[in-house]
Amino acid sequence: MKASLTEALGIEHPIIQGGMVWSAGAKLAAAVSEAGGLGLIGAGSMDSELLRDQIRKARRLTSKPVGVNLPLLYRHAEDNLKVILDEKVNIVFTSAGSPKKTTPVLKKGGATVFHVVATPTLALKCASAGVDGVVAEGFEAGGHNGHAELTTMVLLPQVKHALKNLDLFVVAAGGIASGAQMAAAMALGADGVQVGTRFAATVESSGHPAYKKALLEAGPTSTHLVIKKGIPVRLLENDFRRRIEEAEANGATRELLVEMLGAGRERLGMFEGDVHNGELEAGQVAGMINELRPAAEVVEELIKGFAKVVSEISSTKTLK
Amino acid sequence: MKASLTEALGIEHPIIQGGMVWSAGAKLAAAVSEAGGLGLIGAGSMDSELLRDQIRKARRLTSKPVGVNLPLLYRHAEDNLKVILDEKVNIVFTSAGSPKKTTPVLKKGGATVFHVVATPTLALKCASAGVDGVVAEGFEAGGHNGHAELTTMVLLPQVKHALKNLDLFVVAAGGIASGAQMAAAMALGADGVQVGTRFAATVESSGHPAYKKALLEAGPTSTHLVIKKGIPVRLLENDFRRRIEEAEANGATRELLVEMLGAGRERLGMFEGDVHNGELEAGQVAGMINELRPAAEVVEELIKGFAKVVSEISSTKTLK
Repeated sequence: MKASLTEALGIEHPIIQGGMVWSAGAKLAAAVSEAGGLGLIGAGSMDSELLRDQIRKARRLTSKPVGVNLPLLYRHAEDNLKVILDEKVNIVFTSAGSPKKTTPVLKKGGATVFHVVATPTLALKCASAGVDGVVAEGFEAGGHNGHAELTTMVLLPQVKHALKNLDLFVVAAGGIASGAQMAAAMALGADGVQVGTRFAATVESSGHPAYKKALLEAGPTSTHLVIKKGIPVRLLENDFRRRIEEAEANGATRELLVEMLGAGRERLGMFEGDVHNGELEAGQVAGMINELRPAAEVVEELIKGFAKVVSEISSTKTLK
Repeated sequence: MKASLTEALGIEHPIIQGGMVWSAGAKLAAAVSEAGGLGLIGAGSMDSELLRDQIRKARRLTSKPVGVNLPLLYRHAEDNLKVILDEKVNIVFTSAGSPKKTTPVLKKGGATVFHVVATPTLALKCASAGVDGVVAEGFEAGGHNGHAELTTMVLLPQVKHALKNLDLFVVAAGGIASGAQMAAAMALGADGVQVGTRFAATVESSGHPAYKKALLEAGPTSTHLVIKKGIPVRLLENDFRRRIEEAEANGATRELLVEMLGAGRERLGMFEGDVHNGELEAGQVAGMINELRPAAEVVEELIKGFAKVVSEISSTKTLK
């Protein structure tokens, strides 16, 4: 019999904290792992020196497993891959790029490897590349996303179906910030959940206080997926996003959008706290998050809420 | 204690067949109701004479409750409302327009009234208008949709939260074609589910065989939401949609899009079977539907799948 996701990762709860740029440093990852989930350090906003430092720091903060998220199309990706191998990180989540080359290298280094997908087709490519599992990330997720726009509700069963004869884990991401949403993801066939935005709004997140405040103040319709001609990204409403949306409505080319985006826009918004001109990545769940919490409380709340909902749904009349 | 949705509607299973234009005639609605769900006649593609005829036909086909879906911004809406009152239809789902005026009229006529919403804000307006419940329809749903782009996974909990002190039913729609998806919706707090696309691909649907064939052949990424500057609509890929998408990418105005759409485009695609130049409405679940089935089998499969998933999720290790 196949090991469960928690057994395979050596964790207590099937809850993975997304390795978000600028929010997911050692402090957040270690706090989530200490609470029984899996913390991921987000290498996408770190050069190799900082990444090495954060991996070592996380290991000082917890003896439990901590992984790294590595976006493959990032300019420091190659150097960061070397650090991951060098430091013998044994859980790696790759994203944004092809898993074909990197997966065998990571597997050879002894890591358990997951890749983030937005379509069943890419899930099959990941399987060929030799991953241990995929993260099926829906349209509602914060930050960078695919062009297919499949929601978690529809993506997950289709990824499960595509991989049905293969021994791979499927983790659900996008739209999960509560125990009820975790239960929904598990009902759709997920082995576990990856939670991003809810963990970005925690005490231990390394994001700027002004960014965290913007997450807490967001309403149900505050996020939109923009830059669809380039690499689509889900952002909170602000001046920067409004300028981009206006340009897109007028038929802006990919080149113009890339120029408007410029460099360092994510850092400006999420790390330096310029909530007007920076990128503020957030999932649709931002509208449900109203309180800054310690990461451990978020983990506990998810698990308790999950158990409650499962107990309730088991007693629905339809089943009698 | 509040009655359950099934008690309130006088049905056996909390499964509602969406009142889709061109697919949802008397035959489909009666078949779903006979199978223990709630069939809805789609008034959005009928003039008042045809609607009256279809209501009477459905009553000959089944003694169980059958409702009507009435899009309020439709040119025959006022006449169709008169027919609904005249024929004493006691379950009415309204959509596409404000529920403020119509709800009191329908309630006075003795009907149980639901309105379709895409945001928690509209759900609250529906509550003020006096509805008995709302259908929270996510971004992944087929056909016409809102501008907020909230997915079922995120919309449902937020609508539940908005209505938390009110005695209203919440039905989930968008992304539901299997028992697992139904279980997910119930985990999110839904009292029941509304299923559209899966019922459009049934034997009893009045859609053109070529449209049904297109639904069965659709892949995971075959649908897209288009005409976002007008009334957004989720369509299968075809020549017509490609022309629209190209125009949108080039910054087409709302006026140009409305002109390109023209009149009778839905009828052309879904009823007359011009799969190249017509509108082929479909939800993202189209990629999961591969077989034309009798409606009763769809109902049975949903219920059986739901029970199976609930039983599986109740025995997950995390809960022990």
